[in-house]
Amino acid sequence: MPASLMEELVSLCKRRGFIFQGSEIYGGLQGFYDYGPLGVELKNNIKAAWWRANVYERDDMEGLDSSIIMHRMVLRHSGHEATFSDPMVDNKKNNKRYRLDHLVKDQKADVIEKVAAGIGEDASNFPAVVAALIKQPAKASEVLKAAGVRDAFSGEVGDWTEPKPFNMMFKTTIGPVADEESYGYLRPETAQGIFTNFKNVVDSTSRRLPFGIAQIGKAFRNEITPRNFIFRVRELEQMEIEFFCVPGTDEDWHQHWLDKRLAWWEAQGIPRSKIEILDVPPEDLAHYSKRTYDLMYDYPTLGFEEIEGIANRSDYDLGSHTKNQSELNLVAKVSENNDSIAKLTIPHPETNKPLVPFVIEPSAGVDRALLAVLSEAFTKETLENGSERIVLKLKPHLAPIKVAVIPLARNREEITTVAKAIKAELQGLGLGRVLYEDSGNIGKAYRRHDEVGTPYCVTVDFDTLGLGGGEGKESDPALKDTVTVRDRDTLAQERVKISELSGWIREKLR
Amino acid sequence: MPASLMEELVSLCKRRGFIFQGSEIYGGLQGFYDYGPLGVELKNNIKAAWWRANVYERDDMEGLDSSIIMHRMVLRHSGHEATFSDPMVDNKKNNKRYRLDHLVKDQKADVIEKVAAGIGEDASNFPAVVAALIKQPAKASEVLKAAGVRDAFSGEVGDWTEPKPFNMMFKTTIGPVADEESYGYLRPETAQGIFTNFKNVVDSTSRRLPFGIAQIGKAFRNEITPRNFIFRVRELEQMEIEFFCVPGTDEDWHQHWLDKRLAWWEAQGIPRSKIEILDVPPEDLAHYSKRTYDLMYDYPTLGFEEIEGIANRSDYDLGSHTKNQSELNLVAKVSENNDSIAKLTIPHPETNKPLVPFVIEPSAGVDRALLAVLSEAFTKETLENGSERIVLKLKPHLAPIKVAVIPLARNREEITTVAKAIKAELQGLGLGRVLYEDSGNIGKAYRRHDEVGTPYCVTVDFDTLGLGGGEGKESDPALKDTVTVRDRDTLAQERVKISELSGWIREKLR
Repeated sequence: MPASLMEELVSLCKRRGFIFQGSEIYGGLQGFYDYGPLGVELKNNIKAAWWRANVYERDDMEGLDSSIIMHRMVLRHSGHEATFSDPMVDNKKNNKRYRLDHLVKDQKADVIEKVAAGIGEDASNFPAVVAALIKQPAKASEVLKAAGVRDAFSGEVGDWTEPKPFNMMFKTTIGPVADEESYGYLRPETAQGIFTNFKNVVDSTSRRLPFGIAQIGKAFRNEITPRNFIFRVRELEQMEIEFFCVPGTDEDWHQHWLDKRLAWWEAQGIPRSKIEILDVPPEDLAHYSKRTYDLMYDYPTLGFEEIEGIANRSDYDLGSHTKNQSELNLVAKVSENNDSIAKLTIPHPETNKPLVPFVIEPSAGVDRALLAVLSEAFTKETLENGSERIVLKLKPHLAPIKVAVIPLARNREEITTVAKAIKAELQGLGLGRVLYEDSGNIGKAYRRHDEVGTPYCVTVDFDTLGLGGGEGKESDPALKDTVTVRDRDTLAQERVKISELSGWIREKLR
Repeated sequence: MPASLMEELVSLCKRRGFIFQGSEIYGGLQGFYDYGPLGVELKNNIKAAWWRANVYERDDMEGLDSSIIMHRMVLRHSGHEATFSDPMVDNKKNNKRYRLDHLVKDQKADVIEKVAAGIGEDASNFPAVVAALIKQPAKASEVLKAAGVRDAFSGEVGDWTEPKPFNMMFKTTIGPVADEESYGYLRPETAQGIFTNFKNVVDSTSRRLPFGIAQIGKAFRNEITPRNFIFRVRELEQMEIEFFCVPGTDEDWHQHWLDKRLAWWEAQGIPRSKIEILDVPPEDLAHYSKRTYDLMYDYPTLGFEEIEGIANRSDYDLGSHTKNQSELNLVAKVSENNDSIAKLTIPHPETNKPLVPFVIEPSAGVDRALLAVLSEAFTKETLENGSERIVLKLKPHLAPIKVAVIPLARNREEITTVAKAIKAELQGLGLGRVLYEDSGNIGKAYRRHDEVGTPYCVTVDFDTLGLGGGEGKESDPALKDTVTVRDRDTLAQERVKISELSGWIREKLR
C-alpha cells in the first residue's frame, strides 16, 4: 500500500527537521510536538504574515501578548470552568479512557450503524448520534456494549461506562502553598487575555469603536485523545482577533472578516476552492455565539476539518467579565459576576454613552495553518529525465530558507570566501533565513532544498572566480563574477552577476 | 519624595500600553504580566534582533521551538526534580510563606546583623549567611526568631519554621486520568528542549561540530516571592543558545560567546560600562557548570542583577539524557539514566569516533532585556523653552513604532487620504509598525511619540496639498508634495518630498 500524503508529510517533517515528537527520547508525550530548525522558520513566517496583514496593514488594530497562566476567575467567568469539556467514557476492563465521539467515529461502519439504531438516531447524522448518547448516559453505556464498540488499545469489545464530561483545561498550583484558592489555569484560548485587557488597551491607546485587538500565542487543551499529527494537540498556538464594534454593525463586520480571512488564506497558498464555509446551524452554536462561520479546509486523509472559526460573540465576553452587569443593557445571557473590578465599556462613537461593544472573533490555529500550508505545497513531480522529485512549492514569504548559497567545492578557500560573502550580503536584505550550504554535493543540495521549499539556490563555482573547472576545462571569461541561480519551481538555471544579485533576489522574493 | 526611575518606568509602561499586570480585572495574579500594544512590538523586536544575530548571521547555528509542557523524565534526568528548588520558611502565626534569602534581605540592617551573628557568619557576606541558615535548619529557625525577623505582610516578628526546599516547577496533569504517572512539567528553562532534540537536529541537518541550537520561548518558575516588576516573574521568556563543541575547545568558545554577547547588548543600547562580568567563584557554581560568567546589569533601584548567564556546562546535559552512559567517557558526574532511548553522541570531527560534546550556554531573559532596554532609553530632558519632556531614546530597530504618520486635520479628507497612502507605503517597507496617528492635536502626538520612542513623525499638512493654512495663510508652492519629518532625538523638523520619503526613511532606519 503506498503511503498516504499525510504519512509522507509526517515523514518529511521529521527527516528534514520541521517537526519532531515532543519529549521523544523518553518515549514521547502524546499531543506535544517540537518544531525543528525549518519548522520554527515556517511557523514564524506564518505568524509574521498574519501579524502584517492584521495589525500592520490596518489602521484599526492593536497587538497584545498576554500571559499563559491566568487567574481562575478569568476562566470561571468566561464560562470555561462550566462548559469547556468533552464527554468521555471509560473501558472498565482496562481503565482506558476515550472521548466519546472519537471512540464511536473510529468503529467500523456496521458498529456505528448499531450504535445509531440503539440510541434512536440515523448514522448519517453523526453529531445527532453523539448528542443523543450524551443526553441519555445510562442508555449510552448499554448501547455501546451491545453494539460491540471496540477498544483501540486492546482490540476487544469494551465494558463501557456512562459518558461523563471532562474539563479540558490544564490546572496548576501557583505559589508555595497548595490550598483551595492557589491554582490557575493554562489558558485554553488566547482570547480571554484580550477581553481582560480591553480597558487597558482602550485607556493606553485612546481607541474608539470600531477597532480590534490581535494576539498570537500558545494555548493548552487537555485533549482526551490527541490525534492526526499536529491537527489535534494538547499544546497549540493560536492567532486570534477580537474586533469590537457597535451593536447593529456586527453583521457587516462579520462579513468583512469572512472576506478578509479567505483572502489571507489564499495569499498563503490555500486556494479558495479547498475551503468550505460552514454556516454553523443555530442549534450547534456555542452558547456565546450569535452566528459562526467555520472555515473547513480539505486536509489530506482527514477530509474537511476546521482551520479557522469566525464567530459573532455578541456582547457575551465583555459582558461576562464586567462589573455592574445589570446597568449595561446586555444582549447576551451572562452569569453574575461579583469578582471583576472593572467596567468594560467604551463610549458610543456618536452618543458617547458607555457601551459594551459586540465582538467578531476570527480565530485560527498556527499548527493547523502550517499543516495546511505544507499539504498544499507538497508536490511530487516526474522530471524530463524520468526521475521523480519531491518539492515544497511554498509561497516564497513562507519558505523557511529563502536562498541557499552553495560553494561548489567546500575545501577551496577562494570559493568558500566568495560564497560566504554572498551569504552575508543576501542575509543583510532582511528577507529571512539565508543558508550557507556546504553539506554535500550540488545534486544532493538541490534535492534537499527542493524538499524544504527553498525558492533559490545560488552556486559559486570555478567560473565565478575565472578559474578553469575541476576537470581542466578552460573558464569562460564572460562567466567571471557571476553565479548560477537555480529556480525551485522551473528548475531554470541562470547566470547572474554578483553585483546585481541582491537586487535580483529582492525583486524575485518580493 | 520624587518617584524613582523604576516607579516612573512602571507608570509609563501602564499608561502607554507596554506592560499591564496579568489578570488585573480580578485583582491581578502575582508574577504574571501582559504585554500591551507597544510592549508586544518592543518584545518582538528584541527577539528578532537576537534571532538575527545568533541564527541568521552565523553559519553554525540552527533554530528550534520545542513544547512548553515536557515529560517528567526530562526534568528528572536534567536534575530539576532534585535540585531546582529554593529554601523557604513559614510564619506559623499566619501561614505565610517566604523565600528564605528574600525574607532576610528585606530586614533592617541591625536585624540582618543579628541573623548573621546568630548563625556564625559575617553580614557582609550575605550568600554565606543564607548558606549557613540552610545547612543548620533547626538552628536557623531559632536564629530568625531571636533576631526579630519580621513578616512583611503582618509587620510583626514571625514564628519561623525551619527552612525547607520548595521545588519551583509548575506541575500539571496530562490526559484524562490523574494517576501517579500522568503528570508533566511546564519547562523551567527552554534549554532542556534543545538537549532532548539534539539527535533530531543533527540527523535532519547533517551538522558537524562545532555548532549551536538557539531557541526563544516561555519558561515557568513558581517563585515564592515574585518581585521587582518584570525582573522576577513566574512566567518569563528566554533566549537560549546551546553551543556544542569538542572538549578542549570549550574554553575558547566560552570566551567567544562572552565577547559576542557583550557586543550584542551594546547594539541594543546597553553600554558595556553598565554591565559587570561576574566570574562565578567555583564554590558558587551550579552542579553542571565548569565555569560561568554572569552578566550583571546595573538596573535602576535594583542595582547590579543578572541579565544573562553564560555557562560552560561541560558534557553534563547530553550525558545526563543519553542512554549507555557508561560507554561514553563522560567528564561530568551524571545520575544513572535507564529511561532514555537515544544515544546523544556526534562523530568527532577528526576521528569520527562518537563523542558527547561540551556545551556553552548563553542564556538571556527577554523580560529582563526589555526592562534594561527601557531603563537605558528612558530620558528626561529640559527643552530650550524650559519645558520638560520624557523621551525613550530606543535604538530604531527596537522602537515599537517606526514612524507615526499624522494628518494635521483629521476630518479633512484631502489630507487624510494622502496621510493614509503614505502610511501604507511606509508600512510596505517592512521595517516594523507604522502608525496612522489621528488621535489628538499635533503637539500631543509629538509628546506621545517621544514617550514611546517613535524615531520619526511625518506630518501631512495644508502645504502638502498646496492649500492655504488653516488660518487663511497663503501656501508656499515649494512645499507642495512635501511633508514635515520630525526627529525624535534632535527635534529637528525637515521638509521631505513625498516621492523621496520611502528612501529617506529606509536610509535613516537602517
